[in-house]
Amino acid sequence: MKIERLQAFSDGMYAILITILVLEFVVPEYQVGHLLDGMLNQWPIFFAYILSYVYVGTLWLFHHDFFLSLKQIDRKLNIINMVSLFTVTLINYPTLLVAATLKRGNINDLRVAFMTYAFVAMLISLTYFWLYSYAASHSELAVKGDMNKELYSRIKYDPWRSVAVYGLAIGLMWLSAWLGAAMVVAGIIWHFIAYMRLGRNLHELHAPEHKK
Amino acid sequence: MKIERLQAFSDGMYAILITILVLEFVVPEYQVGHLLDGMLNQWPIFFAYILSYVYVGTLWLFHHDFFLSLKQIDRKLNIINMVSLFTVTLINYPTLLVAATLKRGNINDLRVAFMTYAFVAMLISLTYFWLYSYAASHSELAVKGDMNKELYSRIKYDPWRSVAVYGLAIGLMWLSAWLGAAMVVAGIIWHFIAYMRLGRNLHELHAPEHKK
Amino acid sequence: MKIERLQAFSDGMYAILITILVLEFVVPEYQVGHLLDGMLNQWPIFFAYILSYVYVGTLWLFHHDFFLSLKQIDRKLNIINMVSLFTVTLINYPTLLVAATLKRGNINDLRVAFMTYAFVAMLISLTYFWLYSYAASHSELAVKGDMNKELYSRIKYDPWRSVAVYGLAIGLMWLSAWLGAAMVVAGIIWHFIAYMRLGRNLHELHAPEHKK
Amino acid sequence: MKIERLQAFSDGMYAILITILVLEFVVPEYQVGHLLDGMLNQWPIFFAYILSYVYVGTLWLFHHDFFLSLKQIDRKLNIINMVSLFTVTLINYPTLLVAATLKRGNINDLRVAFMTYAFVAMLISLTYFWLYSYAASHSELAVKGDMNKELYSRIKYDPWRSVAVYGLAIGLMWLSAWLGAAMVVAGIIWHFIAYMRLGRNLHELHAPEHKK
Repeated sequence: MKIERLQAFSDGMYAILITILVLEFVVPEYQVGHLLDGMLNQWPIFFAYILSYVYVGTLWLFHHDFFLSLKQIDRKLNIINMVSLFTVTLINYPTLLVAATLKRGNINDLRVAFMTYAFVAMLISLTYFWLYSYAASHSELAVKGDMNKELYSRIKYDPWRSVAVYGLAIGLMWLSAWLGAAMVVAGIIWHFIAYMRLGRNLHELHAPEHKK
Repeated sequence: MKIERLQAFSDGMYAILITILVLEFVVPEYQVGHLLDGMLNQWPIFFAYILSYVYVGTLWLFHHDFFLSLKQIDRKLNIINMVSLFTVTLINYPTLLVAATLKRGNINDLRVAFMTYAFVAMLISLTYFWLYSYAASHSELAVKGDMNKELYSRIKYDPWRSVAVYGLAIGLMWLSAWLGAAMVVAGIIWHFIAYMRLGRNLHELHAPEHKK
Repeated sequence: MKIERLQAFSDGMYAILITILVLEFVVPEYQVGHLLDGMLNQWPIFFAYILSYVYVGTLWLFHHDFFLSLKQIDRKLNIINMVSLFTVTLINYPTLLVAATLKRGNINDLRVAFMTYAFVAMLISLTYFWLYSYAASHSELAVKGDMNKELYSRIKYDPWRSVAVYGLAIGLMWLSAWLGAAMVVAGIIWHFIAYMRLGRNLHELHAPEHKK
Repeated sequence: MKIERLQAFSDGMYAILITILVLEFVVPEYQVGHLLDGMLNQWPIFFAYILSYVYVGTLWLFHHDFFLSLKQIDRKLNIINMVSLFTVTLINYPTLLVAATLKRGNINDLRVAFMTYAFVAMLISLTYFWLYSYAASHSELAVKGDMNKELYSRIKYDPWRSVAVYGLAIGLMWLSAWLGAAMVVAGIIWHFIAYMRLGRNLHELHAPEHKK
């Protein structure tokens, strides 16, 4: 099965997800003549938006690079990808929760919101582990024979490190909601670092085609 | 006529449909300090979202595989596809009805909501029967000559089985709304099984190109 | 300039437009236990949705066939297409107006709503005339040399017939809002007939490539 | 790395952004029988919509032409593009602010709204400067060897002119909010002129492939 439609469908879903988040940026309630005050009160929405944009953007970059290393797909990979996209769509919900609870400031609600964010992020990472494992054991799908086997065997546990980071964040939240929240933000940054790592690995393996 | 734009347009519509369903996941009404209680009350939205994600996702997989077996389209197939997409867009509405009525719990409203869901699902299945019939009688569109004739003649009544399942669900709802609702859920699962069946058939016929 | 990105961008916009119309189908206000009554009161939304789905769907089919006859684009055609897409996005607004005024039933408001619909439809048709005229005078963009010159010289006034139909509809509305509204619906049907006509013409000219 | 998915993802995001702006066009509040009055009061939404449609549309045309001059991308360009898309998504917010403040008419709020618009436009222009600079120093990505080096060295400061225009607009707003607002509108028009300029330059360099 050709890979193009899976990519087009996934690109569509990622593009929609990353863009509809901005629909939360509505005109704030404000007293006439004091729009700026109303806007400044919207910083929680802005924070949540940037966080999720970086996260979903990084996920797309992973997705892009992953399927770049494959020359075809099979029915099962198509289904795994659909499950992965499902978990990514869920991120919209905790993004809204984070924005709302940061605004209201109650520490218990904030904890619940960031835990939900971390939980969804764990699910997403697990589906990426599934994708990498599948690629590691199906060399016939790879652009370059056994290269993927080597590559994805080396990096397939990267998603588990993300899972550990988010799990730790959930644990920390019982000590301090703010510390846990900071850990979630650190997890998003970790994703970006992991992306760079995947980048270097792909680069070594595919150097001839993808000159940097 | 080339097949690529029909696929791109359809992918766009499926991607939007499956993603906008998540827009229903908004921050629940909650008392400050009790966000979790508010979230738990949202289970009907979550249930309806998963149900429709699985359903629309499976429909896309069918759509993907179907057009994989064609090498070109004609004007009439383009129109049939547009009708099929119309029925798929409708699923957004009963999804919302199911979520709303599960939340309020009135049995009469629940029956109406699931009946509407089943009715839209019947329409969708009928358009797939139309697509398969058209492919069965137009071998010139197939990737491999007469193969599609054989394939789609064999499976073109699969959609009617779905229609029967949903029709039975509507009938059962007069006995018991919950039993009928369970039948609708079973129908979605049936779709997924039918997808696997199509998968095997395509696999046998197209084995050389699409090694699994 | 290659034609692929213009098509991808246009497909994206058409797919979004035709799909977001369904977002109007929300759960109606209803008394618990009487959901069906609430749903039946939503017929104006359903009517407006079907009307605009048929209209936008037909426009996409035209767009698809038009760019099928071109092998490349230039900067100016890219801009004309952007203007055309602008007018198509506007249809969302009168669709909502038609649904709202059909529900409330005031004849003056209904007249305004359908006039707005007809006016936007006139604008859309004018941009298609612009597209066809441009293609008629730029044979270097055509898949087959002078064929487009002949084809689009023959059909480039089709959009003006649509303009006349919608203009007549606006005029009729001063006599009777319902008669004018019926004329708008007839105009949408006229579009579909015109699509079939374009279809036959393209078929004659491009017969070797696009066997039907 | 191939350029196709970056384009598909970007096309998706631009298409969604330019289309969801129309979601603001809802049925106005109106007294039954006076729909037209309600619609006429919506002119600020219409003005803001046209402004942003022209702006985002022009940005897409730039994006289209820019990537037309590249034959491949690398990881860093993919990330720069993601940052650029982020700034473009932000335009949705000041568009809503401009519409809301034009409606209410308070001069202080209007100033804030247009300043926000100008500020986001500055950010967008800066990311285009980044894209052009990157292309100027990475000839290996160009369709035609050293041509891009020459081209983008010549035009890479165009975005800074836009930045200057928007900066001037922000300054002028302290003198007169209306004058500043007019300057923002002039900035959008400047973009379109700059697009034409890029067009001519690309035309000279790539004349053989892209006959106009």
